[in-house]
Amino acid sequence: MATIMEQLEELYPEMVEIRRKLHAQPELSFHEEKTPAFIADYLEELGVDVKRGVGGRGVVGYIKGDLPGKTVALRADFDALPIQEDTGLPFASEVPGVMHACGHDGHTATLLVCAKVLMENRHLIKGTIVLIHQFAEELAPGGAIEMIKDGCLDGVDVIYGTHLWNPLPLGQVGYRSGPIMAASDRFEVKIQGKGGHGAAPHETIDAVAVGAAVVQNLQHVVSRQVDPLKSAVVTTASFHAGGPFNVISDTAELIGTVRTFEEDLQELVINKMDQLITGVCASMGATCEFTYIKGYPAVVNDPVETERFASIAKEIHSEQLVTEMAPVMGGEDFAYYLRKIPGTFFFTGSGNSEIGADYPHHHPKFTFDENAMLLAGKLLLHAAMTYQEQ
Amino acid sequence: MATIMEQLEELYPEMVEIRRKLHAQPELSFHEEKTPAFIADYLEELGVDVKRGVGGRGVVGYIKGDLPGKTVALRADFDALPIQEDTGLPFASEVPGVMHACGHDGHTATLLVCAKVLMENRHLIKGTIVLIHQFAEELAPGGAIEMIKDGCLDGVDVIYGTHLWNPLPLGQVGYRSGPIMAASDRFEVKIQGKGGHGAAPHETIDAVAVGAAVVQNLQHVVSRQVDPLKSAVVTTASFHAGGPFNVISDTAELIGTVRTFEEDLQELVINKMDQLITGVCASMGATCEFTYIKGYPAVVNDPVETERFASIAKEIHSEQLVTEMAPVMGGEDFAYYLRKIPGTFFFTGSGNSEIGADYPHHHPKFTFDENAMLLAGKLLLHAAMTYQEQ
Amino acid sequence: MATIMEQLEELYPEMVEIRRKLHAQPELSFHEEKTPAFIADYLEELGVDVKRGVGGRGVVGYIKGDLPGKTVALRADFDALPIQEDTGLPFASEVPGVMHACGHDGHTATLLVCAKVLMENRHLIKGTIVLIHQFAEELAPGGAIEMIKDGCLDGVDVIYGTHLWNPLPLGQVGYRSGPIMAASDRFEVKIQGKGGHGAAPHETIDAVAVGAAVVQNLQHVVSRQVDPLKSAVVTTASFHAGGPFNVISDTAELIGTVRTFEEDLQELVINKMDQLITGVCASMGATCEFTYIKGYPAVVNDPVETERFASIAKEIHSEQLVTEMAPVMGGEDFAYYLRKIPGTFFFTGSGNSEIGADYPHHHPKFTFDENAMLLAGKLLLHAAMTYQEQ
Amino acid sequence: MATIMEQLEELYPEMVEIRRKLHAQPELSFHEEKTPAFIADYLEELGVDVKRGVGGRGVVGYIKGDLPGKTVALRADFDALPIQEDTGLPFASEVPGVMHACGHDGHTATLLVCAKVLMENRHLIKGTIVLIHQFAEELAPGGAIEMIKDGCLDGVDVIYGTHLWNPLPLGQVGYRSGPIMAASDRFEVKIQGKGGHGAAPHETIDAVAVGAAVVQNLQHVVSRQVDPLKSAVVTTASFHAGGPFNVISDTAELIGTVRTFEEDLQELVINKMDQLITGVCASMGATCEFTYIKGYPAVVNDPVETERFASIAKEIHSEQLVTEMAPVMGGEDFAYYLRKIPGTFFFTGSGNSEIGADYPHHHPKFTFDENAMLLAGKLLLHAAMTYQEQ
Repeated sequence: MATIMEQLEELYPEMVEIRRKLHAQPELSFHEEKTPAFIADYLEELGVDVKRGVGGRGVVGYIKGDLPGKTVALRADFDALPIQEDTGLPFASEVPGVMHACGHDGHTATLLVCAKVLMENRHLIKGTIVLIHQFAEELAPGGAIEMIKDGCLDGVDVIYGTHLWNPLPLGQVGYRSGPIMAASDRFEVKIQGKGGHGAAPHETIDAVAVGAAVVQNLQHVVSRQVDPLKSAVVTTASFHAGGPFNVISDTAELIGTVRTFEEDLQELVINKMDQLITGVCASMGATCEFTYIKGYPAVVNDPVETERFASIAKEIHSEQLVTEMAPVMGGEDFAYYLRKIPGTFFFTGSGNSEIGADYPHHHPKFTFDENAMLLAGKLLLHAAMTYQEQ
Repeated sequence: MATIMEQLEELYPEMVEIRRKLHAQPELSFHEEKTPAFIADYLEELGVDVKRGVGGRGVVGYIKGDLPGKTVALRADFDALPIQEDTGLPFASEVPGVMHACGHDGHTATLLVCAKVLMENRHLIKGTIVLIHQFAEELAPGGAIEMIKDGCLDGVDVIYGTHLWNPLPLGQVGYRSGPIMAASDRFEVKIQGKGGHGAAPHETIDAVAVGAAVVQNLQHVVSRQVDPLKSAVVTTASFHAGGPFNVISDTAELIGTVRTFEEDLQELVINKMDQLITGVCASMGATCEFTYIKGYPAVVNDPVETERFASIAKEIHSEQLVTEMAPVMGGEDFAYYLRKIPGTFFFTGSGNSEIGADYPHHHPKFTFDENAMLLAGKLLLHAAMTYQEQ
Repeated sequence: MATIMEQLEELYPEMVEIRRKLHAQPELSFHEEKTPAFIADYLEELGVDVKRGVGGRGVVGYIKGDLPGKTVALRADFDALPIQEDTGLPFASEVPGVMHACGHDGHTATLLVCAKVLMENRHLIKGTIVLIHQFAEELAPGGAIEMIKDGCLDGVDVIYGTHLWNPLPLGQVGYRSGPIMAASDRFEVKIQGKGGHGAAPHETIDAVAVGAAVVQNLQHVVSRQVDPLKSAVVTTASFHAGGPFNVISDTAELIGTVRTFEEDLQELVINKMDQLITGVCASMGATCEFTYIKGYPAVVNDPVETERFASIAKEIHSEQLVTEMAPVMGGEDFAYYLRKIPGTFFFTGSGNSEIGADYPHHHPKFTFDENAMLLAGKLLLHAAMTYQEQ
Repeated sequence: MATIMEQLEELYPEMVEIRRKLHAQPELSFHEEKTPAFIADYLEELGVDVKRGVGGRGVVGYIKGDLPGKTVALRADFDALPIQEDTGLPFASEVPGVMHACGHDGHTATLLVCAKVLMENRHLIKGTIVLIHQFAEELAPGGAIEMIKDGCLDGVDVIYGTHLWNPLPLGQVGYRSGPIMAASDRFEVKIQGKGGHGAAPHETIDAVAVGAAVVQNLQHVVSRQVDPLKSAVVTTASFHAGGPFNVISDTAELIGTVRTFEEDLQELVINKMDQLITGVCASMGATCEFTYIKGYPAVVNDPVETERFASIAKEIHSEQLVTEMAPVMGGEDFAYYLRKIPGTFFFTGSGNSEIGADYPHHHPKFTFDENAMLLAGKLLLHAAMTYQEQ
């Protein structure tokens, strides 16, 4: 393994180069064309066995080791965001309104260079390494689900993935057994009352008053109906109703989000919300339409694989810098892979205020410390190859 | 009429005497025995044709005039209250815990002395005067409804009644066409949740939280669902739920009152309350029992008779002191008479702070200025006899 | 008087002609030019002493009788509304997007023809008749307040005005002593919380949640803090807050209306609203800006003048068709005249479903039965001249 | 160690005997007399160096090993509860209304027999074992705080304690790094409004309505103001206000509990509650008194000692049966020891439905499987002695 790590370090400049190249040419989720082509070409040039258009726009590479063994998948996503870059970097986005503002350019560069190293060390590989280059992570329903349907996990025993993560300083690594990222859902409530003159409320069903009661009573879901030892968020993000100051509104529209880490809790929250919204509306004579759109499920790491990963990471990197982290409330469609096979998703610290790498993800000034890519690559390779060693 | 008024004035001392005699021997609603016996004896002694036990404990006297004409009823109630008198008056209640704290002793004394004067002037009476001495006004379902069933209004064309009223200073008279006293109802809500440990709300249905939501949302009945040009009150008077600080209560009990002046509004309020309470409870998984106990309906004065009464009162008493008054939110079972025949119920000012007659009705120190009885008697006699003159 | 009425009847066709002429050329509040010019020209041609540009765009005519006596004002407003007419009438508005949709064309035609009759009967007039042709009634702050400042009520003893009113059928007349039209105010609440990620409510002050609590608790103003025997409306007409489903809104904006009939109640409502809104926002860590914009005050009719008017109206028109009416929740700047001098404002029924005159005021298909103008004219002339007879 | 364990096993019958003896003679918190005397006598008879009356009623024993080393404390509490026993056991409580319904009898018996074994193995002890027999764990402010003030932790390096725990089946052991038991606090809110007649809400400040708004808005603390990744409970357990159905209550009293695991979160909850309650009351013109009584703080286990304990327990007992557990929402004054020195508190499963040991703690039928004492003893001895081995 020592050699492999050294080779990776030597190839760090190429990692940076690829990342910057991708960064300058970002492509939106479900509109990726040049990026997957570039990936596939790069891999083929290395001699990797490549499938293009997996699940639509995904690329899957297969590196078969000289020795028999297990099949391990490593995943990197490659889509960008509808954000106008404002970093002023020399390699900033050349596409107006589109930006790699989440670090997927880094994920891809990391995995490509790992592939290069792996290809050079096939004699050490016991089994197969599957490189899953995923499109459309940023936009539900996401690319993972389609790539899985299209067979990207077929025969795969375990999967690893990471996210470069500015909230963690460069050098730190965060792992967590069980739920590490939340299920992130959207809900909408359309309340239908009956409009009328502002001076004659008794002839109306006041949708603003009903909506306010709904929002108030929705607080009970989290405060009374969710196990206090578990985490859930029910946020009514927007409330829009009414026009002129003297006209009672006939409708009100609430839109919001729900976050949970467990599927049964998610179901409970949906049921309680439904009961609360329907009941409150009925109590005031209004009707309502409650729509709940599930986003990605929670990313639930396999305990065994996570513990194994944590030991390795502590060993090869640092006991102090590899720590259990609190779950992150955002969503990731890596969740779908983990519903099929064991594996773990971890966070590789990429924050560095000295170089301006301290903006949050999805910020127009977001950038990350590129050195994080090297650590990410080392960890992914170790996770994969020690798994096969077992 | 002048003679009649003079005679009444001459008999004012007897009015006072009777009132004080009754005051010293108060009897609770539905437990009146000595009072109706005294009334009946007094009337019979005058030669009045008397029916005892009308509707249970009522007394009805019939004074037939020498001239043909209409039949007019005058009503006085005679029950007392479960209050310990604290006036220190020489004629204070001799019955512990029972007190004429509302002035019904005065009503009775007034009507009895009116009867005496009427008996002496039968040659002037065109038709019949019916004296309705009613039991049990203070306690629903009240005596009026039973006396009516028992025929006290049979053949009666019109009815008048008054209440001695401390909120109005002595000398003032208050009238009002339409609703003058409210329907006064009682409601109870028993909320059934599911108890449990204070630290585990998710295993319970928190009856305190449900009850609070019910009280909050009940405000909408008056604020949104009642015509703002009409009057309604929905008061949750009591909220009782829970015991130890760390145990979530399984039940909550709300008790309150509703006041309205119109029957259709009363029905609307009941329906809206039912809808709100049921809906809110359901919205949080609780069940509930909503009980609504109607008290006396609103006292609705006949417009024609009220206008007629007001003109007469202004004429014989004072243009300034006889005024239209705001409705009173309390209830009276005089309401039942007015649902059968026309008539009017008015308030005769009896307040006088100089003699301590400024405590509210039902107060242990309540007393009224006895001079109000004389004015009340004059107004009742005038109302009755001018009606027959028409 | 009989002659005068006959003359008015004879001039009814001219009334209609003027009304239709005005109807075709409506002008918006504060933009009236041709209308006041037409009015002033018409009056001057009759020989009326005219002041133009009173308070800006108003016209005041003075008709001095041959006999000495009191000064009586009659008022008619002449502005139109920003509504696209959809009546299909031959004399429909020729101005796109502007329409006489409230009947002010009728008010003006009525008063002009009354002026013509008055000018022909100066020998019968005891005192002076002041014709107040008011601009900008539809748009606060309205024209009345400026015309008063400019002296239109100087020396005036009493004022009368009417509104053609489709909710009342043709032939009916509605009067009311005391408040007949409500004070109609506007309020705005700007809640300032702190925005943030939908999954991290604890880092925010959720303006939607605060706004909902404000709306809920505002119900207490009417349900608990206003005398149930009085009328008040507090309507939150609109609630706007928030954008994307996963972003907690930092602000919420509520807009609504308050209706009251008494000034002290209006003040109480403002104070209670202020207390409630400020308190609830503070309770959740938010700040707020509460703006209350008073519209026209309540139109409060003088009891003596109203009773006098009602008697006359019953006499010359009909005991049955002239009735006391419930107050109207809308506003009128006639209120300002009545704050200065006695007088009364009444409603002249103009509804007639047979000719399509049954749309509500301010509706694109609104029109009224023109015969109402004749009755309105008769009532105004009688009110004015009988006042001078006293 | 093997010998020690065998000796402990041999002494199991004595453990049972002592436990049953204590069980029959339970003593209430802060009223313990015979129990500490018995403990002290027993220990002295073994030759243990004993301090009586530590912090009031506590007993501390010191067993000095023959070898030099660290000082380790083991703690057992010995108070009972005000509950009437209903187990029907032959050794049931002989004191009416008092019962060992939480297992402290077992804790004490376990530690006493451990002392016996330790005394016989002083040649193996490297350092000192401090036996902390604590009074009054069940009733705040508890005995721990006073015993610490009185020096029971002086010179102590680490502390271990356990609770026999029916929710865990016999054989299972639960550990947890960080917070394992919640801070359990009590709050009271006294709302002062202004009473009055149920029909005249505008003359009152309705304490029931205010209280309901307070309860509703308090939901926001947990739903919006607490980090969703952390646990907090705010339960309003009781709501009492009002009497007769037609009287608006002037006061309302809310009592409830708060549970948290972190001190800063506890402070945040207190502050937010204060802000919410004060603000809502002020918003409706009421005043309030908010009293917050902190109970025991959270029991926060030292990560290093917990991990060490877990390894040992897995080793000597079972990898499968020794598991990380969810925190328990109840409180324990073991918390105070852990605020001073490192250590860990764990749960020893004692549930066994086959012998009726499946009632919850504090239940009149509560009993536990006595075999749990043996395991508890073994774990405590191992924890102590391996610590000294380090």
